[in-house]
Amino acid sequence: MPSTWRRWLPSLPIADWGRRYDREALVGDAVAALIVTIMLIPQGLAYALLAGLPAEVGLYASVAPLLLYAVLGTSRVLAVGPVAVVSLMTAAAIGEHAVAGSPAYWSAAITLAFLSGAMLLAMGLLRLGFLANFLSHPVISGFISASGLLIAASQLKTLMGVQAEGHGLVPLLAALAGQAAHTHWLTLAVGLLTMGFLFWVRKGLKPLLTAWGLGPRLADVIAKAGPVAAIAATTGLAWGLDWQAQGVKIVGTIPQGLPPLTLPEWDPALWRQLALPALLISIVGFVESVSVGQTLAAKRRQRIEPDQELVALGASNLSAALTGGFPVTGGFARSVVNFDAGARTPAAGVFTALGITLASLLLTPALYYLPQATLSATIIVAVLSLVDLGMLKRTWHYAKPDFAAVASTLIATLALGVETGLVVGVGVSLALYLWRTSRPHIATVGLVPGTQHFRNVLRHAVVVSPRLVSLRVDESLYFANARSLEDRVNDAVATMPELRHVVLQCSAINDIDASALESLEAIDHRLREAGVALSLSEVKGPVMDKLQRTGLPRQLGGGIFLTHYQAVSTLAPEVLELAPPGQCPPCCRQSNGEE
Amino acid sequence: MPSTWRRWLPSLPIADWGRRYDREALVGDAVAALIVTIMLIPQGLAYALLAGLPAEVGLYASVAPLLLYAVLGTSRVLAVGPVAVVSLMTAAAIGEHAVAGSPAYWSAAITLAFLSGAMLLAMGLLRLGFLANFLSHPVISGFISASGLLIAASQLKTLMGVQAEGHGLVPLLAALAGQAAHTHWLTLAVGLLTMGFLFWVRKGLKPLLTAWGLGPRLADVIAKAGPVAAIAATTGLAWGLDWQAQGVKIVGTIPQGLPPLTLPEWDPALWRQLALPALLISIVGFVESVSVGQTLAAKRRQRIEPDQELVALGASNLSAALTGGFPVTGGFARSVVNFDAGARTPAAGVFTALGITLASLLLTPALYYLPQATLSATIIVAVLSLVDLGMLKRTWHYAKPDFAAVASTLIATLALGVETGLVVGVGVSLALYLWRTSRPHIATVGLVPGTQHFRNVLRHAVVVSPRLVSLRVDESLYFANARSLEDRVNDAVATMPELRHVVLQCSAINDIDASALESLEAIDHRLREAGVALSLSEVKGPVMDKLQRTGLPRQLGGGIFLTHYQAVSTLAPEVLELAPPGQCPPCCRQSNGEE
Repeated sequence: MPSTWRRWLPSLPIADWGRRYDREALVGDAVAALIVTIMLIPQGLAYALLAGLPAEVGLYASVAPLLLYAVLGTSRVLAVGPVAVVSLMTAAAIGEHAVAGSPAYWSAAITLAFLSGAMLLAMGLLRLGFLANFLSHPVISGFISASGLLIAASQLKTLMGVQAEGHGLVPLLAALAGQAAHTHWLTLAVGLLTMGFLFWVRKGLKPLLTAWGLGPRLADVIAKAGPVAAIAATTGLAWGLDWQAQGVKIVGTIPQGLPPLTLPEWDPALWRQLALPALLISIVGFVESVSVGQTLAAKRRQRIEPDQELVALGASNLSAALTGGFPVTGGFARSVVNFDAGARTPAAGVFTALGITLASLLLTPALYYLPQATLSATIIVAVLSLVDLGMLKRTWHYAKPDFAAVASTLIATLALGVETGLVVGVGVSLALYLWRTSRPHIATVGLVPGTQHFRNVLRHAVVVSPRLVSLRVDESLYFANARSLEDRVNDAVATMPELRHVVLQCSAINDIDASALESLEAIDHRLREAGVALSLSEVKGPVMDKLQRTGLPRQLGGGIFLTHYQAVSTLAPEVLELAPPGQCPPCCRQSNGEE
Repeated sequence: MPSTWRRWLPSLPIADWGRRYDREALVGDAVAALIVTIMLIPQGLAYALLAGLPAEVGLYASVAPLLLYAVLGTSRVLAVGPVAVVSLMTAAAIGEHAVAGSPAYWSAAITLAFLSGAMLLAMGLLRLGFLANFLSHPVISGFISASGLLIAASQLKTLMGVQAEGHGLVPLLAALAGQAAHTHWLTLAVGLLTMGFLFWVRKGLKPLLTAWGLGPRLADVIAKAGPVAAIAATTGLAWGLDWQAQGVKIVGTIPQGLPPLTLPEWDPALWRQLALPALLISIVGFVESVSVGQTLAAKRRQRIEPDQELVALGASNLSAALTGGFPVTGGFARSVVNFDAGARTPAAGVFTALGITLASLLLTPALYYLPQATLSATIIVAVLSLVDLGMLKRTWHYAKPDFAAVASTLIATLALGVETGLVVGVGVSLALYLWRTSRPHIATVGLVPGTQHFRNVLRHAVVVSPRLVSLRVDESLYFANARSLEDRVNDAVATMPELRHVVLQCSAINDIDASALESLEAIDHRLREAGVALSLSEVKGPVMDKLQRTGLPRQLGGGIFLTHYQAVSTLAPEVLELAPPGQCPPCCRQSNGEE
């Protein structure tokens, strides 16, 4: 059924930009590809080491995925490849099942990329991109900050030249403190100087170059090449001064050649163990990729298509699994670089893949003497920019539930690891949302004299009657909050002996589910037994459509009124006598959108 | 710190009704207690057997819990004791760990009651009663119906006089079908005749008695004694015709005496295994009990206090654990009987406990020849009244998500058992709620000519401008739906080339969380880059308070307006020229609360 397939499989984005490809786009793409290649080589090596894999795997993971994304992706400038957080998650997922550096470990990483790719592809074909919306900004922010701190901490041992392991930030730092006496001082010096240099390149080099009269574009390119300069310099020094003999750990032999052809392990037990990590990696990778893609697309009034992005990232990860790589996604820094350097189309990704291929064919012998501490310094500088602890302060200031979501994700990730941390964060943010909607704001409202408006009796000088109570529910009614309304109505009946009418103003009720409907029926029934009539006012169209399908509108002790004013003027006309129409009172004119 | 304790532990309800106890209340309570005792004896025996326990345990569980509830409970008429659904859940929880009928099994049941009691007490002291609100009506309905079917099916083997086991409804029925050839026909005849008699007592006896001139109250009491009559008759026949010799299974020796003093097992492994079942039993028991209590309390304009009910049910279950019982809760049928028979205060529960004690001291030898099939018939007739498959039809008609919640709970409970079924039901109902709120109704609105009202452009004849788009979001903005709004705004910008203003009408937005705030900032930023200004109108007070604490109101490309009309008349005055004020048009006057 090819027509069915065509409906499910969106048309390829390449068909759109490929037809209009011209010389100008070619130049932009080629320049951007050159810069991204220079940036991606050290990042690829470093993130592969972070994931516990041989350095060259980082290069393998930066070829085929870029090609696949160029064909299938909807972002014009997204640069796909190994990224810090996903590499950390990969290490956490595989570390439990295999020894870092072993063939079984690499094999598990390939399998993880395969599973993650298959899941992304399936989610894309089933149009499940909306699932990523359930990762709230506070959770993402807390998770990324904690991951950045964990990654930086994990690199300290390479920087110090010691061995230390620990699950969670505190045990890791404690282990490092215990090893402080064994610090290899030359290694540490190389690492710290590289870090200092890289921070200076980030902050100080570009203004300096501009002051020297270089154009801002050229200054930017030179500043982006900072990590490459650090690598070249420390590799040269390590070779010239024979640092290896003095105990500095170097990268060593990186095999030359094209990415190998590989297959995932067909081991059901391994698949079961990796299923949850693969799902979390898929979702985190997708969210990171889509946020970057959307931000950059909007700058040129372009759009990206989340479900097609899932397909593209899925195919990228499957291709990583078939070419010896590990899980990849769209990276933030490199995509921004790609965009700023003038990439016009996904062809820039194809050129980048070509550059990485050339590098892995020709350049790897030159990296033999590269100190591992240099790569660790590169990682630390890159990930510390991900840490945003200011989010804690901002959310504390804005709303406590959001603060709770950031803090719990941050703490859980630091203490319990990336997978548990993410699950805790999503759980907490959903629980807080449900908790909030389960206790809705219900205002008793009264008539603002001289108008047809009803406002909160606690905030405004309004007119009310002892025979009628008006309640405005500021939330859709559903099972978790239906009982709150029952309680509020019961309170009103218990405290107002003269009560004859309860009118619910439904202007903020966007839905009433079956549980809430039963609650309304129960409220109506109980009120009737107490000699009180229930009425509704300002029911929205879609809600009214649903209620019409039930017996409620006919059973209701009172009635359903178009406006709340109409309800009150029919049921308790004495209120109108207390508030004659006329000049709008000051409380009404001054009110600035309150309630 | 006694003052702290007094704050946490609510004042005892008995202090309220005990002081005003009089002769009239005494008579009402005593009569009601007699009727409930007669009803509770066969039920206690039957539900103990259903839970896989010796019959006398049902009597033990109907003494101490009633006394504790009388002291601590807030419902005047709730009758506590073994109930069908909780007994089924008890059997499901313990069946995995011990053989029914063994001492270890009974011991585990006692431990389950202890854990459940401790959990209920803790939830009460921590004021966690609101958690029960997350069990929606559709989930409860599906769960109770499925439990009723499972219980009825589980009794068929006793009715047929065969052995058959199966996990889930279909395997159980298949096992019974396989045993059909071994049916013990006399047992089946006794069971079916008893069932027929009990159904007739329910439907046909009372009208008949009334027709014979008996008062409706007396007719009711006689009808309620139906199960006792069935028990007396079949026990007599079994004794007189020596049915035991013909292979009819009888109840046999029920030990005479007071409930024994017992302690739960102090076995951490068992506690871990029973923790989840105990929690689910606690919540189901609490929800059942509170619904009954609330319904009956409302009839007399009384109230019950959910958190105090947790304390009372917790103490009841703890006392059940200390006196050889198993998990108990407030039962629906017996509470209604208690209420109808004129119970005025919880003293009726004390008298009932006294009646059951007398029965277990004196009556048990008389039950030696009671056929087990009679008890099974009693159970089947009782639980089939719980099955409400009409709920499927009603929710299908009302709203598909509610139908999905009923159907998935029903099917999961029937197929996977009570615990999994309940967890699936809660998960599905929460997921459906989140899914719905994650795709909010966003209407493009326009000015109704001659008014200051804005209505959906798809439903009404309204005036709009190509330079300004008005969007009304019918949901609070939170992380799961923030992107929907971004998409909708992006669409508007992409399709309206002349667009200069986007105004969000915020009248139905009850909250904006940190994620949605970032989305609004992102929307504002992107719109500005595209030369479009974002404005807000009709922002509610609490939402405005939050926004004031951020930079948004100052950064906004447009402004924040008190009313939507004000926003449009300021930003796109040409709309007003197209819709001069004057006579309210028919579309406005006829609209019956739509949107």
